[in-house]
Amino acid sequence: MRAVARANTNIALVKYWGKRDTALNLPAVGSLSLTLDGLSTRTTVVFDGKLAADSLLLNGADADERALGRVSKFLDLVRTRAGLIERARVESVNDFPTAAGLASSASAFAALAVAATHAAGLELSDRELSILARRGSGSAARSIFGGFSQMHRGESADGEDSFAEPIVTDWDVRLVIAATMTGRKATLSTDGMRHTAETSPYYDAWVKMSERDLGTARDAITRRDLQALGEVTEASCLSMHASAMAARPAVLYFVGATIEGYRIIQDLRRSGVPAWFTCDAGPHVKALTDAAHAQQVEAALAKLGKTWICRPGPHAEVLE
Amino acid sequence: MRAVARANTNIALVKYWGKRDTALNLPAVGSLSLTLDGLSTRTTVVFDGKLAADSLLLNGADADERALGRVSKFLDLVRTRAGLIERARVESVNDFPTAAGLASSASAFAALAVAATHAAGLELSDRELSILARRGSGSAARSIFGGFSQMHRGESADGEDSFAEPIVTDWDVRLVIAATMTGRKATLSTDGMRHTAETSPYYDAWVKMSERDLGTARDAITRRDLQALGEVTEASCLSMHASAMAARPAVLYFVGATIEGYRIIQDLRRSGVPAWFTCDAGPHVKALTDAAHAQQVEAALAKLGKTWICRPGPHAEVLE
Repeated sequence: MRAVARANTNIALVKYWGKRDTALNLPAVGSLSLTLDGLSTRTTVVFDGKLAADSLLLNGADADERALGRVSKFLDLVRTRAGLIERARVESVNDFPTAAGLASSASAFAALAVAATHAAGLELSDRELSILARRGSGSAARSIFGGFSQMHRGESADGEDSFAEPIVTDWDVRLVIAATMTGRKATLSTDGMRHTAETSPYYDAWVKMSERDLGTARDAITRRDLQALGEVTEASCLSMHASAMAARPAVLYFVGATIEGYRIIQDLRRSGVPAWFTCDAGPHVKALTDAAHAQQVEAALAKLGKTWICRPGPHAEVLE
Repeated sequence: MRAVARANTNIALVKYWGKRDTALNLPAVGSLSLTLDGLSTRTTVVFDGKLAADSLLLNGADADERALGRVSKFLDLVRTRAGLIERARVESVNDFPTAAGLASSASAFAALAVAATHAAGLELSDRELSILARRGSGSAARSIFGGFSQMHRGESADGEDSFAEPIVTDWDVRLVIAATMTGRKATLSTDGMRHTAETSPYYDAWVKMSERDLGTARDAITRRDLQALGEVTEASCLSMHASAMAARPAVLYFVGATIEGYRIIQDLRRSGVPAWFTCDAGPHVKALTDAAHAQQVEAALAKLGKTWICRPGPHAEVLE
């Protein structure tokens, strides 16, 4: 009734933005991501009949009610499936600084899905794990897999066709992250997505465009064409942010340093360095590049804040 | 055969972005602007049979071929209308620093339209002047008028229904400008518009949304409702930039300081100051506010660069 699992965070290259169903957490668009090495969450789950309630320790400290409630609801899915009534003790540790604002629900819910199902004695396929992880966080569905993976929007109302699948795991690209310094609290992505869907005049076109971008990115990965992948990565990111920026009132995740990072990456590219900008629902700057140029890209972005160079990360796994 | 005229630049509150006809310079959307006091162009036109060619002196220096060609083509429209064959000597002086990147084709072509027609002996109505000025620059059509004016998209192929009209000239708002320091050369707005129309998935929605924003802004001005005008001003600006940012490849006019200015204005608003962000096809920050708060807004934006507080500006006029 105890298991430990680890999952890595991922960065969407073709962005996920918008839900077609909030209860089942079904995306309005497919997405495509790279799982990142070195940014992982390690989660221990113990189901124990003596516990009166679920508990959650995050990086050594008791989690707040909101986080505990979300995890408890997720554990209910596992308990229902396994026929368990035991409450659980959950301990989750990120191997990267939470303070840097890179804490990710993707690695958290992927690790929780793997650890909780294992502790509960369930043997799920990767696809089943991806569907389950999605219920915790849309992006977590992709963190079950290593390397490049694609999340399918799916069509069915029950969400059983909305899961991620691996595309390629052996293409050795790099993702450089620059965590811009800022105390600003971004709009939560769930809230930003809903507000965009409800008020942005560009939302329908965003959803339609995503379908095409997915195909382009998938083709580029299959051909190992970094330039083609980089171009659609940058375009998908800016289209996503543009759809939110046109919401009323606007949802804008950029800070000044985000745009400075974009300009730095543009300038690198003009000088012949293969690097493309992306950015999630927050201010941090990320650059897709290759192994030969990662250090040069990192050096150029270092003035924005703390930086990391990430290789493609591994599949989520059971550790104990 | 000589005249001197002055026209002021204007800031679009509901943005102009996209052309329905490039030859006649017809906009795809209507727009709504505030003409600005203190930022004007003073232009002298002399038609002279002894001149072998048109000449153009800009702020005391010979203009480049491109600028001269554009002015000469504009003068041809006036010559055709007046039945003149004489070439002209044109001298144009901005009363604001060109180096600040605020040089405006709006004030330039409005002043040129008034000076050239007057020198040619034509007596045009304001509407005819607006239609003529539009041929030089879309935004110049609005600079014929003082205060708030609205540019009509028009429907006719000859452009005779595409002109600006005054809405209100006696509402004493303020526009604070912060010229962000940057050497970056922006994409020319004509090029940015064309690229957006051709490649942005959001362009159609932008055009449709503009129509609604125009009505909202016009209503707000009629009611002297600064909050309602401010909200649609900020929304129209961000929607315009979002439409361009989603073009492929992206057209992004922001620099880091632009977003910092946006954040400063947001923070001011949270503290109860009536101020709303806008920004043209360049990096500079502009804030719509009222007379009582203009200095506070200027002080907050001063860290971005040189600032100006502008009152509503006057109608274009013949000086000599």
